[in-house]
Amino acid sequence: MSEKGGAPAAAPAARAVLQQCLQARLQVKPAEELSEAQFVQIERGMVIYVCFFKGATDDILPKMVSTLLNLRLCESDSGKLVSVLELPGSLLVVPQATLGGKSKGRAMQYHNNINKEDGLRLYGEFVSLCEKELSGANVTVKHGTYGNRQVLKLDTNGPYTHLMEF
Amino acid sequence: MSEKGGAPAAAPAARAVLQQCLQARLQVKPAEELSEAQFVQIERGMVIYVCFFKGATDDILPKMVSTLLNLRLCESDSGKLVSVLELPGSLLVVPQATLGGKSKGRAMQYHNNINKEDGLRLYGEFVSLCEKELSGANVTVKHGTYGNRQVLKLDTNGPYTHLMEF
Repeated sequence: MSEKGGAPAAAPAARAVLQQCLQARLQVKPAEELSEAQFVQIERGMVIYVCFFKGATDDILPKMVSTLLNLRLCESDSGKLVSVLELPGSLLVVPQATLGGKSKGRAMQYHNNINKEDGLRLYGEFVSLCEKELSGANVTVKHGTYGNRQVLKLDTNGPYTHLMEF
Repeated sequence: MSEKGGAPAAAPAARAVLQQCLQARLQVKPAEELSEAQFVQIERGMVIYVCFFKGATDDILPKMVSTLLNLRLCESDSGKLVSVLELPGSLLVVPQATLGGKSKGRAMQYHNNINKEDGLRLYGEFVSLCEKELSGANVTVKHGTYGNRQVLKLDTNGPYTHLMEF
């Protein structure tokens, strides 16, 4: 990672990777002996992969959600950049603890990640705030199951991958 | 972004986001009046989204490629984590300048990104080094066209999204 002799970075409390999509589908329940796998799906909108670090608290969430949903990252039909709220587009929120990884040798370590209990609570609250912000006839907020494998299928017209830390 | 009163972070020279895939398809030439769009595709392996910052030089590339290709991020058939070289899996390299963005208000700015000429050279060299490292009967390195829209389709069994900076 970026240790270039400078002072250490202020540690972020949360990290998000954003990708634009035409359609995204995510497994929310794996197949079991007597039941098929369950999926959620959005059409045009944004995928938010999110990870919380140790020390993250609920009070970062309102600004975090407001920032992510108001950033002008989405291409409107006229080619103008607008926010996902303005598009309006749907949201798929994907819990992604791997985003907190740091390499040590050839292995990734996740020592800075928040514990599972707090992570689950923050993630749930993050999704709730997204749902409050986003409303409209043809838009929706879908999300993955915290702690599960995030079996994802993504179709884009350019993901325009962005990284944001809070 | 993460400005929490601590000392400023040492600026990275390059940023990569890594996702595992079962299949990934990327447009390398858009449709024109007399020709259809052209695509490249890989099966099981890893997508590397890459962005270079101002000040990045060729001498970071060997270590960067070696690190990315040797990190144990891929799940083998037995469930063990191995590198993309060990899997062995294919690579799709996607130039993704948006990864260098920083928010200013509601807009993203890309002032720290490398200029187009140097970025193109580093990107080409990065791809060449990946091609030298990865060889095998059923694996391949594919890559997007620098500066183009990266029309991407991704199918995963869990993207295991990781961030690495150099």
